[in-house]
Amino acid sequence: MRTKDEHKKEALFKATVKLVNEIGFASSSVSKIAKEAGVSPSTIYVFFKNKEDLLVSTYVEIKRNMADAFLDDFDERLPIRDIIKGVWFSMLKYISNNLEKYDYLEQFANSPFGALVDKDALEKYCNPILNVLERGIEQKIIKNVNRELLSAFMFQPIARLANPRLCHGQAWGEEDIETAFTMAWDAIKL
Amino acid sequence: MRTKDEHKKEALFKATVKLVNEIGFASSSVSKIAKEAGVSPSTIYVFFKNKEDLLVSTYVEIKRNMADAFLDDFDERLPIRDIIKGVWFSMLKYISNNLEKYDYLEQFANSPFGALVDKDALEKYCNPILNVLERGIEQKIIKNVNRELLSAFMFQPIARLANPRLCHGQAWGEEDIETAFTMAWDAIKL
Repeated sequence: MRTKDEHKKEALFKATVKLVNEIGFASSSVSKIAKEAGVSPSTIYVFFKNKEDLLVSTYVEIKRNMADAFLDDFDERLPIRDIIKGVWFSMLKYISNNLEKYDYLEQFANSPFGALVDKDALEKYCNPILNVLERGIEQKIIKNVNRELLSAFMFQPIARLANPRLCHGQAWGEEDIETAFTMAWDAIKL
Repeated sequence: MRTKDEHKKEALFKATVKLVNEIGFASSSVSKIAKEAGVSPSTIYVFFKNKEDLLVSTYVEIKRNMADAFLDDFDERLPIRDIIKGVWFSMLKYISNNLEKYDYLEQFANSPFGALVDKDALEKYCNPILNVLERGIEQKIIKNVNRELLSAFMFQPIARLANPRLCHGQAWGEEDIETAFTMAWDAIKL
């Protein structure tokens, strides 16, 4: 069971996502976030050093949350294409169900706050996936190209497919999603 | 030469992009946009019916601007892969040089205002590119899949590659960019 503190922290993360998406980073003051979360402003300082710390922690929390979803049925013994397919489908599902959180991630990464994140803390969430890509490259299954390119082609289109607003309201059938994964795979495979 | 009116209109588009990116759609009032543009609020109503009209017009103006850049050296007589490569490189260049405008496009498309755009008005900007894709499909060069998928895999990764903040500050060499296009092509080719 969650403690009262965990509930408060979660309310603060949720309020941060909502407010930043609506009015941006600059206007999202500690007092507005506290109000939205239904806690007193001083409560924020029980959990976070300052506004920056809250913004960064919200980002890291979503990343952790997302990685949990990815790694849910991650099985390293499967063929590499199957592992990547699993991660790809989990990511599509996660973003579809968490569009607001994903918008926050994108906005955050695209802001000066992005530079404040402890890269090592994030790495442990991505490592299982990165290791699979490295194995794929060694085995000459995946293109030996800049890793940012692999990630851009595997994952960036998902952000669009997962968001009906960005696809002119397109509703995807199972076959479309299979096709989309094939296209992602064609982009990265050797 | 531009008229005084064109200068004012351009200042309003610029101010709209800047403010919406900073404080979001809801907080970007007509008076704040006018102030940012250095014009009186009543001037806005000379050119636009209301705030919504200004937001939509800013979106359409950027789309027109972007299409101009794409179609700059568009030559229908070239092989299909070469035409698409030209458009892809133009898009990368445009977004790299206009990150704020592109952020506005993304935010706008991802907002309820996206539904207000006259799709026919936009279509004429995209038609030359869509026609090339259709020809490629007919000639069995390009995958015959949902057109949204083609567009997502061809263009979505560019948004990330063009933005150093989203690529951990990665600076791309010419070879990386060639590789990136090859990956986009691999995704959509039959």
